[in-house]
Amino acid sequence: MPMAISDDLSPVRRVEVVRVTGAGRERVADLAAAEEPLDIRLHGESFAIVMRTPGEDRALAAGFLFSERVIRDAADIGAVEHCRHPDHADAHNVVDVFLRGDAANRAREHLERRRRVVAASSCGICGRTSIDELSADLRPLAARGRVSASVIGSLPGRLRDTQEAFEDTGGLHGAALFSFDGTLLGAAEDVGRHNAVDKIVGRLLLDDRSIGDAVLMVSGRVSFEIIQKAWLAGIPVVAAVSAPTSLAVELAGTAGITLLGFVRPPGFNAYTHEQTIAL
Amino acid sequence: MPMAISDDLSPVRRVEVVRVTGAGRERVADLAAAEEPLDIRLHGESFAIVMRTPGEDRALAAGFLFSERVIRDAADIGAVEHCRHPDHADAHNVVDVFLRGDAANRAREHLERRRRVVAASSCGICGRTSIDELSADLRPLAARGRVSASVIGSLPGRLRDTQEAFEDTGGLHGAALFSFDGTLLGAAEDVGRHNAVDKIVGRLLLDDRSIGDAVLMVSGRVSFEIIQKAWLAGIPVVAAVSAPTSLAVELAGTAGITLLGFVRPPGFNAYTHEQTIAL
Repeated sequence: MPMAISDDLSPVRRVEVVRVTGAGRERVADLAAAEEPLDIRLHGESFAIVMRTPGEDRALAAGFLFSERVIRDAADIGAVEHCRHPDHADAHNVVDVFLRGDAANRAREHLERRRRVVAASSCGICGRTSIDELSADLRPLAARGRVSASVIGSLPGRLRDTQEAFEDTGGLHGAALFSFDGTLLGAAEDVGRHNAVDKIVGRLLLDDRSIGDAVLMVSGRVSFEIIQKAWLAGIPVVAAVSAPTSLAVELAGTAGITLLGFVRPPGFNAYTHEQTIAL
Repeated sequence: MPMAISDDLSPVRRVEVVRVTGAGRERVADLAAAEEPLDIRLHGESFAIVMRTPGEDRALAAGFLFSERVIRDAADIGAVEHCRHPDHADAHNVVDVFLRGDAANRAREHLERRRRVVAASSCGICGRTSIDELSADLRPLAARGRVSASVIGSLPGRLRDTQEAFEDTGGLHGAALFSFDGTLLGAAEDVGRHNAVDKIVGRLLLDDRSIGDAVLMVSGRVSFEIIQKAWLAGIPVVAAVSAPTSLAVELAGTAGITLLGFVRPPGFNAYTHEQTIAL
């Protein structure tokens, strides 16, 4: 399917480039990964502005609010929709979220709490204190089954197959979720690696599909926040093409998450809970 | 120089890994990029907590506050020091910043403003509104001289030479600043790509060295925020091993910054202001 490029919601933008080589300069047309701010509003008030690649914005909003623990499950979601105000020029960069039931009653509290928490923390939730808080609230995960080393080895290539816009721009992080038998459950691309994960989790949430034994495969490195998001979503295995950070390894250990890095044929490194991998 | 590893301030941490290949499993010692929260305090109050790789913490704090426009120049800095409280177990993860002169009088205002601004914006400063605000406050940059394509071509290798911890972990972003004749002015590594830039800018600020014609070379991709930081610091050329985003291209155009991507022999792409490059 050819991608729309001029469209505000396309993941890529046309750019004009001067290609410089030993042989001289040449003016050529190229594509860049689109980066735009998304204003995620909760009950009409701005909850967060995230720089993201347009596309799956409703899923991103739902997944982001899930990671922030504002949304606990699909039943909390009343509506997630792009702003429809006819006078708003950037309406495609605004998503309105309305909660329902008890969650709606708690929305005001979340907005108040965010004002206080964020003032002291530019990255939402941080470091050791967070590990302690998450550990107090969440149980360590335990996969029911095992995933074979050969399925793991196939995932980088299969992730790459889902990355349509990366091929065009070289500028996007990719993430994909697979069941233990290798079935693709969801995939997303974004200039922000966290956003790609939020988009996948948010899409499953909007479709009210549960996550069982599954592997989250990411194209780059794994930081603390990716593991935090996986834990909240109940994903027991996280695999990456590149390296994890020290705090990612520590949190995965606590979370019961099997963390795999440098997944590149003919092998990979298991940093935690390697019993989930079957040879 | 061998790096200290057990030390809290080392950029790497020892991890134990199970290496899985077709031939079986093997338990080996490995190194991961250290990731820890740094609490940047302004006049005793937490201004931001950033996830960072320990090392050059004072420079990171100074550079971060410069990017946030709290610090305008070296004269504003009274003291930047690690917390010395003997009862604070994580004192190595806290940097106290004190401003002086007029800047000190404005510190309270910055803290108040941050409480308001951050509540509506998880990424500090975002998107088109910011481009408009920056354009109103800052003049477009204009390099005085030109930088040769052959110097540009040498920078990825020279950046890599500065990345001591990357070699050990594969998990760190690198950035380095070079003059137009190729002299290394500063370099830093971090799990966060923005932090690496803040560390370089902050180090120059702490040493009260000015930035003239210079190229900021980064190991990964270029997002909006990297260009924003370069503009504020007065760096007229930004070069990257990988791709820029659409908003990075747009802001570089406005800022008068020459933006180069895919800098890999035998060439590179110039997205904006290519007149600064001499063949």
